[in-house]
Amino acid sequence: MKPELLETFENQYPNRDYTIEIVNPEFTSVCPKTGLPDFGTITLQYIPNKLCVELKSLKYYYLEFRNAGIFYENVTNKILDDLVKAVKPKEMKIISEWKARGGITTTVTASYEAEK
Amino acid sequence: MKPELLETFENQYPNRDYTIEIVNPEFTSVCPKTGLPDFGTITLQYIPNKLCVELKSLKYYYLEFRNAGIFYENVTNKILDDLVKAVKPKEMKIISEWKARGGITTTVTASYEAEK
Amino acid sequence: MKPELLETFENQYPNRDYTIEIVNPEFTSVCPKTGLPDFGTITLQYIPNKLCVELKSLKYYYLEFRNAGIFYENVTNKILDDLVKAVKPKEMKIISEWKARGGITTTVTASYEAEK
Amino acid sequence: MKPELLETFENQYPNRDYTIEIVNPEFTSVCPKTGLPDFGTITLQYIPNKLCVELKSLKYYYLEFRNAGIFYENVTNKILDDLVKAVKPKEMKIISEWKARGGITTTVTASYEAEK
Amino acid sequence: MKPELLETFENQYPNRDYTIEIVNPEFTSVCPKTGLPDFGTITLQYIPNKLCVELKSLKYYYLEFRNAGIFYENVTNKILDDLVKAVKPKEMKIISEWKARGGITTTVTASYEAEK
Amino acid sequence: MKPELLETFENQYPNRDYTIEIVNPEFTSVCPKTGLPDFGTITLQYIPNKLCVELKSLKYYYLEFRNAGIFYENVTNKILDDLVKAVKPKEMKIISEWKARGGITTTVTASYEAEK
Amino acid sequence: MKPELLETFENQYPNRDYTIEIVNPEFTSVCPKTGLPDFGTITLQYIPNKLCVELKSLKYYYLEFRNAGIFYENVTNKILDDLVKAVKPKEMKIISEWKARGGITTTVTASYEAEK
Amino acid sequence: MKPELLETFENQYPNRDYTIEIVNPEFTSVCPKTGLPDFGTITLQYIPNKLCVELKSLKYYYLEFRNAGIFYENVTNKILDDLVKAVKPKEMKIISEWKARGGITTTVTASYEAEK
Amino acid sequence: MKPELLETFENQYPNRDYTIEIVNPEFTSVCPKTGLPDFGTITLQYIPNKLCVELKSLKYYYLEFRNAGIFYENVTNKILDDLVKAVKPKEMKIISEWKARGGITTTVTASYEAEK
Amino acid sequence: MKPELLETFENQYPNRDYTIEIVNPEFTSVCPKTGLPDFGTITLQYIPNKLCVELKSLKYYYLEFRNAGIFYENVTNKILDDLVKAVKPKEMKIISEWKARGGITTTVTASYEAEK
Repeated sequence: MKPELLETFENQYPNRDYTIEIVNPEFTSVCPKTGLPDFGTITLQYIPNKLCVELKSLKYYYLEFRNAGIFYENVTNKILDDLVKAVKPKEMKIISEWKARGGITTTVTASYEAEK
Repeated sequence: MKPELLETFENQYPNRDYTIEIVNPEFTSVCPKTGLPDFGTITLQYIPNKLCVELKSLKYYYLEFRNAGIFYENVTNKILDDLVKAVKPKEMKIISEWKARGGITTTVTASYEAEK
Repeated sequence: MKPELLETFENQYPNRDYTIEIVNPEFTSVCPKTGLPDFGTITLQYIPNKLCVELKSLKYYYLEFRNAGIFYENVTNKILDDLVKAVKPKEMKIISEWKARGGITTTVTASYEAEK
Repeated sequence: MKPELLETFENQYPNRDYTIEIVNPEFTSVCPKTGLPDFGTITLQYIPNKLCVELKSLKYYYLEFRNAGIFYENVTNKILDDLVKAVKPKEMKIISEWKARGGITTTVTASYEAEK
Repeated sequence: MKPELLETFENQYPNRDYTIEIVNPEFTSVCPKTGLPDFGTITLQYIPNKLCVELKSLKYYYLEFRNAGIFYENVTNKILDDLVKAVKPKEMKIISEWKARGGITTTVTASYEAEK
Repeated sequence: MKPELLETFENQYPNRDYTIEIVNPEFTSVCPKTGLPDFGTITLQYIPNKLCVELKSLKYYYLEFRNAGIFYENVTNKILDDLVKAVKPKEMKIISEWKARGGITTTVTASYEAEK
Repeated sequence: MKPELLETFENQYPNRDYTIEIVNPEFTSVCPKTGLPDFGTITLQYIPNKLCVELKSLKYYYLEFRNAGIFYENVTNKILDDLVKAVKPKEMKIISEWKARGGITTTVTASYEAEK
Repeated sequence: MKPELLETFENQYPNRDYTIEIVNPEFTSVCPKTGLPDFGTITLQYIPNKLCVELKSLKYYYLEFRNAGIFYENVTNKILDDLVKAVKPKEMKIISEWKARGGITTTVTASYEAEK
Repeated sequence: MKPELLETFENQYPNRDYTIEIVNPEFTSVCPKTGLPDFGTITLQYIPNKLCVELKSLKYYYLEFRNAGIFYENVTNKILDDLVKAVKPKEMKIISEWKARGGITTTVTASYEAEK
Repeated sequence: MKPELLETFENQYPNRDYTIEIVNPEFTSVCPKTGLPDFGTITLQYIPNKLCVELKSLKYYYLEFRNAGIFYENVTNKILDDLVKAVKPKEMKIISEWKARGGITTTVTASYEAEK
């Protein structure tokens, strides 16, 4: 994974708390146990402070997971950590919803709130 | 964009707090980076004070974005600013939901609350 | 409109706060600007005090709007006023959802709460 | 109606507050005004105290309404009263949703909370 | 049932409260009254403390119910007890939704919260 | 069952083959084996010859099944026979779709075509 | 009803058989028996010959039914007759789907094919 | 599997070709390779000749697959063979739709037609 | 409109008849009567002969309609003509589905088949 | 791509024409133009002759496309060719449905029929 791929641009409305949600239904990584691909939808929700994440760079950041072996829980928390570091938001949440494996479906949700 | 297109009429029930929601699923603007059109749904929710926005004028106001190059975040905040200025509501919220680009879907939500 | 059409019957369980919701997806009135018909769904929700509204009389009350020219906001607030007057409920809410005009959909929501 | 049909069994987990929801989409009674059948879905939600309602007996209790003439509001409150008496729950709610009559759909919701 | 089948792995992000939801729509057990199979969906939601439940072991744990005679309420509370014991979470919830029997559908929801 | 309840009116467009479909999702009869009610949707499709079936009389005809013990297959064929006899259509089809019993759902479809 | 309201324009592609479908979900007329309004969706499908129906005039033609007392079967066949006369199509079909009355839903379908 | 569990009753309308569809969404068997359970929906469609299959016996016949190791293709063809032998229908079709394994969903469809 | 924007590439499987469907839900043009934008979905289906249409060039071709005043029927037939000329397919169909105007929805379908 | 990964097993019912459908909604390959991943659903339908395709081997065969650059049309025809060669079916069809790119969705369908 390469968090350095993430680019930002300046928030034009820093005085107003507003929410940006970016949904990527085409996320794929690899199960470190079986070596088989996992498929999921990654939802990013945040309230920007001074920076917004640039969409195309976010897409390229996500693409780096394509051939990486990593568990659901760690995908979710890693993306949250990388994006918090890059964007320094007021609040941020990552929801990862995974296609069924063995008939069983998993969703992981992690949140961050900046100290006030 | 021409906020002066926005017309209002007098709220007949100013003593009661009630909510008006106006959904426009046929909004289109242009991506300033690629020059390609963006398509979205703009939802306006507000509690009127003394004025209500006139529907037809709102439609013509939205149409002015058709060939304008502007980012998702700025569309949302600009519409909120223009409508708050024209309608002077008690509360107002703009939700813009955008069709997928590169497989990725974006929603931006901004709110305003009048000082009491 | 004829609020005198509204009939009530005695609430058999006045000591318990319970909710009655009545949805009419076949409401129609006339746009006072264009003279063309509007179509909507009117949802009535209330907590009865001593009276409940009689269903058939409510239907006939709604029918009186069929050829009346009246704006969305006023339909909603007028129905709320008429029903509050007839039923004297503890709480009441009217939600009117209107079919698209010019591609734009409107919903108006108004509430009433009796003084305690 | 025969509330004596309702049977209960002992709650095996009385120290934990948990919720049981039982949905019957095949409820039918008779309109006392027209003599025509009404069709509805009855949803029962409760937090058991020492007793749980036995499913088959609940089904037979509901069947007793099949040829009884009774209004929507009274069906809902009567079922709540009968079940509260039989099951002595910590909390209980009855939601009755009725098929359209004259194009109009009705839902009645009544709740009970035991004194603590 | 064999709670000893449940395996855990170390939570890599113990300092952050995040939620894991695991849905199994292919659960089946046997009705102790009729000897006929029951079919349901078991949803597990929890905030891990130091441990996460291993998915494959959870699947094998669920499979042990396949030929066991047990009531809906007990399935739900037993799974909660076994998982709380194995995973020692901060919070945990089990929702069991059962296919209709005699036209009637049942859902049981039980929760656990660790003492703070 | 009382086929004599079925009333007809004269087809105003006998020279044109057109189709009438009448769907009754509120049909109920009784299972002759268990004595428990069955619930279903009866769909009638026909091409009228000289007569059309009158809607209200059809409703009253269907109501006669409410407390009658009769199997799915026989309900379907009996309704087809009674309606063919009363309406003398060019073509007619009855589709009965029944709510699940023991988790199993049944649909029966029977057709009639007049000799040409 | 006023078939003279129907206007047409010249088909620009008379040498190609193509299909035009126009769906009006906001049709309303009056039941001649009860005097109560009926609500339906009218679908028009046709292959134009030399003429196409003008949309706005079609809308005004439909509006004339708003306060007319007329049965479902006759609405359908009358609209077909009026449109065939005005548009002289190669083929035409009218489907009228009506909201439930007494829990029962009706659909009427009538077709026309020009002699070749 | 025990085809001898299948019971039949006499078709009361042998002179009319009509269709019976019986859908069982609660079918389960075991994968002979992995020993893990498979879940599917079995749809049976047939035109009876002199016999109809009795619903309860069909349910018990299906239950015998619960702990049997058998492939999708063979489940489908075996059920068709057993039912054709027991019911001697004019036509019969079995559709088995299986829940995803490894993200992949399978449906098998087999038909029988009696010689005329 | 600029048909010269359409680019093609060589069909790699010219000996097999196969179907390509390309759906564009983001089509917009302008109503020549009102000057207001129309929104629609254009579906292209074809069996290639020696050429396939290049996707990006198709997108740019569609974009040329954005500010052009043209009726539904002509959009559909014009696109068909331009694509037939550029791609020389064995068969081709264009379906244009338009968002409601005045509550009324229109779909136009036109087909082409090469002489054999 | 490695067609040699495809394994088969003997069809146990070679005398009966029956259909097997296998849907893989987790297919991904790479666009040869942009180097970005494509996502699609591959549906395989076939009537087996003497052989059936083994599910797990089919999954591994599909996985080989994960990092291959190949156009939609060629994916579809290549899979058909490989599977026809391995399985020698009576009939076979491949349907590939691709997620939107630039707002535009593509579906490719190719079929094979053995000579009789």
